[in-house]
Amino acid sequence: MGKNLLYAQSGGVTPVINAQAYGVIETAALSQDIGKIFAARNGIMGVLDENFIDTSTIDKQVLSGLMHTPSGAFGSCRYKLQDEDEIKKVIEILQRHDIGYFFYNGGGDSQDTSNKITQISKKMGAPITCIGIPKTIDNDLPVTDNSPGFGSVAKYVAISTLEASLDVASMCASSTKVFIMEVMGRHAGWIAAASGLANPHIILFPEVAFEADKFCAKVQQTIDKHGYCVVVASEGVKDTNGKFVAKSNNKDAFGHAQLGGVAPKLASLVTERLQAKTHWAVCDYLQRAARHIASQTDVEQAYATGKAAVEFALAGKNALMTTIVRTSNNPYEWEIGSVELEKIANVEKFLPIEYISADGWGITQQCKEYLLPLISGEAYPPYKNGLPIYSVI
Amino acid sequence: MGKNLLYAQSGGVTPVINAQAYGVIETAALSQDIGKIFAARNGIMGVLDENFIDTSTIDKQVLSGLMHTPSGAFGSCRYKLQDEDEIKKVIEILQRHDIGYFFYNGGGDSQDTSNKITQISKKMGAPITCIGIPKTIDNDLPVTDNSPGFGSVAKYVAISTLEASLDVASMCASSTKVFIMEVMGRHAGWIAAASGLANPHIILFPEVAFEADKFCAKVQQTIDKHGYCVVVASEGVKDTNGKFVAKSNNKDAFGHAQLGGVAPKLASLVTERLQAKTHWAVCDYLQRAARHIASQTDVEQAYATGKAAVEFALAGKNALMTTIVRTSNNPYEWEIGSVELEKIANVEKFLPIEYISADGWGITQQCKEYLLPLISGEAYPPYKNGLPIYSVI
Repeated sequence: MGKNLLYAQSGGVTPVINAQAYGVIETAALSQDIGKIFAARNGIMGVLDENFIDTSTIDKQVLSGLMHTPSGAFGSCRYKLQDEDEIKKVIEILQRHDIGYFFYNGGGDSQDTSNKITQISKKMGAPITCIGIPKTIDNDLPVTDNSPGFGSVAKYVAISTLEASLDVASMCASSTKVFIMEVMGRHAGWIAAASGLANPHIILFPEVAFEADKFCAKVQQTIDKHGYCVVVASEGVKDTNGKFVAKSNNKDAFGHAQLGGVAPKLASLVTERLQAKTHWAVCDYLQRAARHIASQTDVEQAYATGKAAVEFALAGKNALMTTIVRTSNNPYEWEIGSVELEKIANVEKFLPIEYISADGWGITQQCKEYLLPLISGEAYPPYKNGLPIYSVI
Repeated sequence: MGKNLLYAQSGGVTPVINAQAYGVIETAALSQDIGKIFAARNGIMGVLDENFIDTSTIDKQVLSGLMHTPSGAFGSCRYKLQDEDEIKKVIEILQRHDIGYFFYNGGGDSQDTSNKITQISKKMGAPITCIGIPKTIDNDLPVTDNSPGFGSVAKYVAISTLEASLDVASMCASSTKVFIMEVMGRHAGWIAAASGLANPHIILFPEVAFEADKFCAKVQQTIDKHGYCVVVASEGVKDTNGKFVAKSNNKDAFGHAQLGGVAPKLASLVTERLQAKTHWAVCDYLQRAARHIASQTDVEQAYATGKAAVEFALAGKNALMTTIVRTSNNPYEWEIGSVELEKIANVEKFLPIEYISADGWGITQQCKEYLLPLISGEAYPPYKNGLPIYSVI
């Protein structure tokens, strides 16, 4: 038997991060070169607490249910290792449990942590193979064509925009004229852009400075023309001074500001300035937990990025993150690639300018072609008594 | 050929009101006793404007697509006929178009309008047969066991609660401790109660007076015990003085206050008092437009209430609303019944006290038994390119 393997989830969870976990666990279980397959409870915090789950003890049906279970079934965390001392502590714990393979499933911050673990463990003379598995609904990781988690959120947001638009259209003659839906995405407009597949009248991207006067004029113009106006706003919308339109005073473990609350602010603005009846929705966690309407492409890529991480490690590779490489747009084709961890850390991939329409309120055809395959296919979970059957570990 | 038929949609739309329309149109088309089948554009406003759609001119595939299209495909409205003069105007218009059957698909206010039309037309010597078709996501219509539209919203809310709960549970060790989801329902707690199928820690009903101190104590207690707390709040939550916790200054055509915004208010309260990281979502129109996750029971009952309305009219009945009668709970069985329109007008059916748990924070087993069959079955719409194919008329 070879060294043991440790898998851990990090950062904001997604509808398909557990499918990534299953890709790792199922693939590793087939190898004679890997000993026990552990998952850390609550990400890196579980490593520090030596809180490991031996995945061979999990009921087989519960384990395979990870393919269709949203959230982080092993627990995730927002915790950044403090300094080199804490990283060394992690390495000592990994060594004590004879762990030779560490798979960290997370965003840019997590890939940075992984990279430090592999570098420092090498210096300490006990190298640990670290492979990163990309994960973020925000789709802001560089190099990879897209990140698992994003496609399903994009599908949820596009469908919700389509459905709500029909609702508003059907009642605008005598009721609500403006509907504003707030979506996540932090500094990057990818999730907001996904709503463009359902053609809302206005999309507010973090990449385009928000100006109240211009916005209100555009809303009024749209009402005059169509009778109603559907707005999708990114939580990360900023004003011309680069300040978030809505942010709370809270910061997370990485020092990122907690966002949320753009929609009601915009609704107040519209009501006051235009005297138009306005409704608003804030999707918040519903969008990133909505496994019930996950994208089939996303689920397949999630599993594949987990599987490939194990295959890379077994092939002797190290300090890489698995990536998704788009090889053809029409028909859509993709394959698994890889990138050095050090190229991922602390780089955010924003919505490119050529994906935003010239007027700044929508997306281009090129953007639609990028997005469409990512929301393709419906990967429905099984149901019992009207509710999805999700695995709890 | 007999007299013509007019169908109209009224009030807030639902994921299945178009399935009700299709039940009317498909059934009426089979009868030799009915002439043309019209639908009014934008409900009663379209009647006043003589804006009628001859449904025989609609493409067959688009028409049958009504079975899986949310919103009001013919347009709905929030408009109450002003007085007897306006009702007489409506009757004259109906007569001019040789309309002998009027089917109004709406809530209590609409059934009241229907009742007046049939009474006054009789006095005017030209009786028009009026059959009401129940519709409200709020489930607050009396007599009928449940109202089409509610089951699908209940399913959306239960699934969203389940999914978001998993999300929060997986990250609470280092991130969000409290998640608050706001749902619709106006004065009645039916939609909030539906979340109980997914066991959130706290449900806030309009039927239970909100007390900030008690609420915060319960939230803290729940965090201490479980590590996190999921709250589902009805938009219609009221304080001990009977005042809505969140309402805007806007009122609709029926004088009802526009609600919305409870979740962020509660989140501020929790953040201030408990210093716990809090996230919140407001479902708003997303919940009532979410045809992508409609309940099969709801879709079937929607069609049946439309179909039965035509059958009642052809059997010479008048001034009735079709109802759903539960004949057995386990196995769930139901049949179509009827009630006089005058018994429906301006009566709201609240969540019964025996459906609310003794501590006021959840639902009873009896309530679960009432709700479960209503969210049963998944009636997925067809998809193309990752998005549902919805009919636009």
